[in-house]
Amino acid sequence: MPDQTLETLFYDTLKDIYYAEKRILKALPKMARGAQSSALRDAFETHRDETEGHVERLQQVFELLGKPPRSKTCPAIDGIIEEGEEHLSKFSGSSAMDAGLIAVAQAVEHYEIARYGALRQWASDLGSSEMSKLLDQTLGEEMNTDRILSEVAESGANRSAVETA
Amino acid sequence: MPDQTLETLFYDTLKDIYYAEKRILKALPKMARGAQSSALRDAFETHRDETEGHVERLQQVFELLGKPPRSKTCPAIDGIIEEGEEHLSKFSGSSAMDAGLIAVAQAVEHYEIARYGALRQWASDLGSSEMSKLLDQTLGEEMNTDRILSEVAESGANRSAVETA
Repeated sequence: MPDQTLETLFYDTLKDIYYAEKRILKALPKMARGAQSSALRDAFETHRDETEGHVERLQQVFELLGKPPRSKTCPAIDGIIEEGEEHLSKFSGSSAMDAGLIAVAQAVEHYEIARYGALRQWASDLGSSEMSKLLDQTLGEEMNTDRILSEVAESGANRSAVETA
Repeated sequence: MPDQTLETLFYDTLKDIYYAEKRILKALPKMARGAQSSALRDAFETHRDETEGHVERLQQVFELLGKPPRSKTCPAIDGIIEEGEEHLSKFSGSSAMDAGLIAVAQAVEHYEIARYGALRQWASDLGSSEMSKLLDQTLGEEMNTDRILSEVAESGANRSAVETA
């Protein structure tokens, strides 16, 4: 009988996304400060507040699972945020700043969408509709943020970069 | 006038995804060997072949841009693949192996979906429908792979992990 079951995988992945959410919480104010358009700055600030809620929801899931809320270094989110910091530094003062910030933020959102999609499915497979529902709420908010970022991109961040090139 | 324009961002991001595609090309056979179900193994093998096409398409985009095809280390994909290797080692022989492999592969797909989504938009903003079309073709295949992986997950990888737990 294998030791590493779906519940272990679920708990490991919860720790991974818990770490990721906390790193994102720290990164978002820096991204908001770097944004040139007020629409993008607003989107980052709104999502920062939502992210606080995601951290709290994860704490509820840990509690429902009967396990302590712990973080586990997530090299994927570390890598995405590293790319964001590189962009902030390299494109400082550039007309392409917002286009790149949006792309980094969408990479973050897509990482979270993949993680919450898996966690929601596993919670359901483990028979907990309560955990599944909490994870589904956050998944919906991540997908919504991704859509808002696409709208901000289409509304002119990139065009402005081309025009001033 | 800023130096770092959208074309620079586009070229930088092409180099990032070029590196990522080549790392994925190497990782997929390892993931296929680790897969327990034949459906998942087949999905990884099919996607490996598709990924060769993605690398070639990127080379065409570099050519259309008039720039040499170069790679740039992508810490995000390095991080995701590191998580995959950790899973392969920790869950070796476990009933939850396939569930975790699918989740890692979906994190890879979502990273690529975010990247190709941005690149397609920028190609269009830069006025190249030809580059945009090539990037859109790959984007469609990444989205399709993500859907196939969800179907494989729903068809029983996770249930089997719960049943043998």
